[in-house]
Amino acid sequence: MRKALAIDIGGTKIYNCIVNEKGEIVSDINKHSTPKDLCEIQNLIKDIIKTNEDNVDTIAIATCGAVNNDNTKIIGSTGNIAEGYSSTDFQSMSKKNVFVENDANAAAWAEHIIGASKDAANSVMLTLGTGVGGGIIIDNKLLKGKSGAAGEMHFKLSRDKKRKCTCGSYDCFEIYASGNGLRLTAAEITGNPDITTYDVIEGVNNNNKACKAALRRWMDDIVDGIIGLANIFDPDCVVLSGSMAQFTDTDYITNEVNKYLVTPNTKVVKGSAGNYSGMIGAALLALRVN
Amino acid sequence: MRKALAIDIGGTKIYNCIVNEKGEIVSDINKHSTPKDLCEIQNLIKDIIKTNEDNVDTIAIATCGAVNNDNTKIIGSTGNIAEGYSSTDFQSMSKKNVFVENDANAAAWAEHIIGASKDAANSVMLTLGTGVGGGIIIDNKLLKGKSGAAGEMHFKLSRDKKRKCTCGSYDCFEIYASGNGLRLTAAEITGNPDITTYDVIEGVNNNNKACKAALRRWMDDIVDGIIGLANIFDPDCVVLSGSMAQFTDTDYITNEVNKYLVTPNTKVVKGSAGNYSGMIGAALLALRVN
Repeated sequence: MRKALAIDIGGTKIYNCIVNEKGEIVSDINKHSTPKDLCEIQNLIKDIIKTNEDNVDTIAIATCGAVNNDNTKIIGSTGNIAEGYSSTDFQSMSKKNVFVENDANAAAWAEHIIGASKDAANSVMLTLGTGVGGGIIIDNKLLKGKSGAAGEMHFKLSRDKKRKCTCGSYDCFEIYASGNGLRLTAAEITGNPDITTYDVIEGVNNNNKACKAALRRWMDDIVDGIIGLANIFDPDCVVLSGSMAQFTDTDYITNEVNKYLVTPNTKVVKGSAGNYSGMIGAALLALRVN
Repeated sequence: MRKALAIDIGGTKIYNCIVNEKGEIVSDINKHSTPKDLCEIQNLIKDIIKTNEDNVDTIAIATCGAVNNDNTKIIGSTGNIAEGYSSTDFQSMSKKNVFVENDANAAAWAEHIIGASKDAANSVMLTLGTGVGGGIIIDNKLLKGKSGAAGEMHFKLSRDKKRKCTCGSYDCFEIYASGNGLRLTAAEITGNPDITTYDVIEGVNNNNKACKAALRRWMDDIVDGIIGLANIFDPDCVVLSGSMAQFTDTDYITNEVNKYLVTPNTKVVKGSAGNYSGMIGAALLALRVN
């Protein structure tokens, strides 16, 4: 069976493994801290490729930042990774074909092929983590837009300019629906500016009223965002993945969303392609074209 | 050249004309008030079809309400038209093939083929009128979603629950960006609850400070909505059409939007397919398949 070397490059960690064309991980998963220095990042990726490329058919990169429609290079903002990273020439690092895709898009593809949105032609995936990522499937294809940057979940949820977003603007869905969003909501409700996301989850587990109210408010903000996305896309389902998804009650969210849609009902479900869905999705995409 | 009988069915007016496959209107345009009674609406449509069907190749209906993916019937909410309208069996009214599409989708298609988004593979069209309609083109195809209802512009712009939307929820883009939205914004700024949209426009023309502030605030709300849509779709352009579009400053809106995008720049332009773009778009779609 054909196989891809998959590399997931984020601002904090870089992972790699080998994935077959069924989307199964068929090697150990290696984990590295992302170096601060650009050259060190590029040398690490080169080393990973050199060690593995003879054993695979293609190289699949899932990366932070928007990726062009040719799946060759990064075009957009790349968050907290070394400056200049977006100029990385991945193809020059291997004699095999290299395929590059945004990590959230890759994860959405994994959910679409082997995960929670498997039989859905139209779906929206949200990765709820420190921030919020998005990947959208329309008629069984990834939504890429004119330049490849589509699926960014920076739409306004408020007009009060109280919360500044990582994108430089105010009041984006991300700054409400992310882990950071939960923290800020809990700080407002409890009056404790130093409360952490971990504190909130512990509080909920201990039946703390204010923490439970913060979690509910956070879910209601997620509901508000999904109402808009579902009215715009009329999707078969909305998939929640990422480290914060485990704290959502998708039955509650589905029910609340469907109360207010002008489009036919949708369902909100948790992702099932696992923690390495970015690598799996990138590999499945790479193996389709290479 | 092949031709379609095009009929535009709205809650207030019903229009009909004949459109050729270049998107040119090649007959007079007939205008009727939409009857209150369902039977009278259906009889009027039957009469229009009976009078014209022998002279055309196909029948194209642009209608209020969401239309299914087979383009045969209405599935969604139909606003202020007679109850039961959505059950209308259009095909039974003609011996020619009948093609049905949502009016905003049809207008977006007209802009895509002969109008302001002509050379754009990816575009978002907003019709700014009493309410707000939407039609989205992705990779040169209409976005329809799982059931045909995609493109509804009911996403939240606020969390303060001050403005109830026609959809039953609060704070939708529609209730800020529509003519009604401008009226409500002007009422807030001037303190006059009876101010009309017409009064605001007259005030702007007379250099009235409060009316100018209301128009600017209305445009800023449109900007906020477009920022979200452009980050989600990464479109080549955003087209503003409908009766209120003439009061927008698209250079200002483009400039403001591009200040805050995380995706590459887009441009916001006025529609150029004219007041009858719904009929033109429906005809062009019908002539492609029938």
